[in-house]
Amino acid sequence: MCPYELYYWPGIQGRGEFIRLALEEGAAPYVDVARRPGGMKKMLKMLSGDGLALAPFAPPFLKDCDLVIAQTANILSYLAPRLRLGAADDKRSALEREIQLTITDLVAETHDTHHPIAASAYYEDQRAAARKRSEVFVSERIPKYLGWLEKILERSGGPFLLGRRLTYVDLSAFQAVAGLSYAFPHAMARLTRRIPELLALRDRVAARPRIAVYLASNRRLAFNEQGIFRHYPELDSSKRGGA
Amino acid sequence: MCPYELYYWPGIQGRGEFIRLALEEGAAPYVDVARRPGGMKKMLKMLSGDGLALAPFAPPFLKDCDLVIAQTANILSYLAPRLRLGAADDKRSALEREIQLTITDLVAETHDTHHPIAASAYYEDQRAAARKRSEVFVSERIPKYLGWLEKILERSGGPFLLGRRLTYVDLSAFQAVAGLSYAFPHAMARLTRRIPELLALRDRVAARPRIAVYLASNRRLAFNEQGIFRHYPELDSSKRGGA
Repeated sequence: MCPYELYYWPGIQGRGEFIRLALEEGAAPYVDVARRPGGMKKMLKMLSGDGLALAPFAPPFLKDCDLVIAQTANILSYLAPRLRLGAADDKRSALEREIQLTITDLVAETHDTHHPIAASAYYEDQRAAARKRSEVFVSERIPKYLGWLEKILERSGGPFLLGRRLTYVDLSAFQAVAGLSYAFPHAMARLTRRIPELLALRDRVAARPRIAVYLASNRRLAFNEQGIFRHYPELDSSKRGGA
Repeated sequence: MCPYELYYWPGIQGRGEFIRLALEEGAAPYVDVARRPGGMKKMLKMLSGDGLALAPFAPPFLKDCDLVIAQTANILSYLAPRLRLGAADDKRSALEREIQLTITDLVAETHDTHHPIAASAYYEDQRAAARKRSEVFVSERIPKYLGWLEKILERSGGPFLLGRRLTYVDLSAFQAVAGLSYAFPHAMARLTRRIPELLALRDRVAARPRIAVYLASNRRLAFNEQGIFRHYPELDSSKRGGA
């Protein structure tokens, strides 16, 4: 047995956080490699493809003994049956992946609110486009994504997205709501009455014993303006969005 | 037994094409629902969530008897063992999904070259931002993505991305290269010498008997400027990209 090794940029929650939440809830032994001494060097070496047939395109990636896999939703799907955070049968796991991949799209769109032109350039150099993209994101996209999750919760019979048992997608929905609430507090405040089930799910996840311990620990990084969920007040439109 | 039902916007290849290619290569009986009389109405009804516990967020989605699943990479992962286009074991299928999801990211970035501000607005209304985003896409992102696929092919021992057997990710790599070559012919011409293995894979896939028949049929739609891979000459920079 080897502990799971998670590789992700130190200093931000980012996409790595979705995996951290699963590892924590699953009580899995893991090492957050790049946050340890010498870890960044190790991560960059693996990213360069050193010795790997399939080098990750980008962090996060996970090492499980001799297997190295990338892509957040893929890592979660792989971990799910191992951590009892998802189904082993392929029809149920396809439904879990469907929700996770839609959250993946939401996360990518969130990133592009502050980097609509180039991920490789500074926010300050794409601020005008960022403002325009964020207006659309706040008025159209956040309500569409979160409304979709709300509807799933209404129909699942609860208390979780896929019914009676918690799966990794519930942890990811928590993280998406937490991140959006940090980045777009005004926009999210306006949505409160439209997503009661989703907010209740967020609270339910935050109160789970292992998650509560994790969130209070120094393993949980704070949101900040180097991550994906960034609070730039000028992007958090105070105009009323949607109809 | 019921035939697979694919739901996708009629008139464009788009994300649906990755699934069509798998169904064609797998010789699977399928119905391309929205291209049939009354099909659009049926698709919109399902999108509205009528009778479904988990309504798709967006097309494409697949119906397999009583199961309805969305998200391109997820649909392909589900079909893979059924169509003998991928592994049944979870470690191999995680590697397939990793490649597919990276192609998914490339496809999303391609879409955003012409819609960097809002998917819901006209290209003509976001042309200035589109030009800026495309410059970065052509000079940084296309070389990075296709270079990554090239390296995987070099190391796999060939002739396919994951070794000796064709999987659905080879079909998707073909489609990505075909789409980028349509949309960005100048940029792709400049890359030719850097991705010989990938171009050989494209040709190998195009020459497969079932794929060749499909590509010559009227089931294969032409690329056009309503799809994801659009040819706008002003976005296909003639400047030399990369270093």
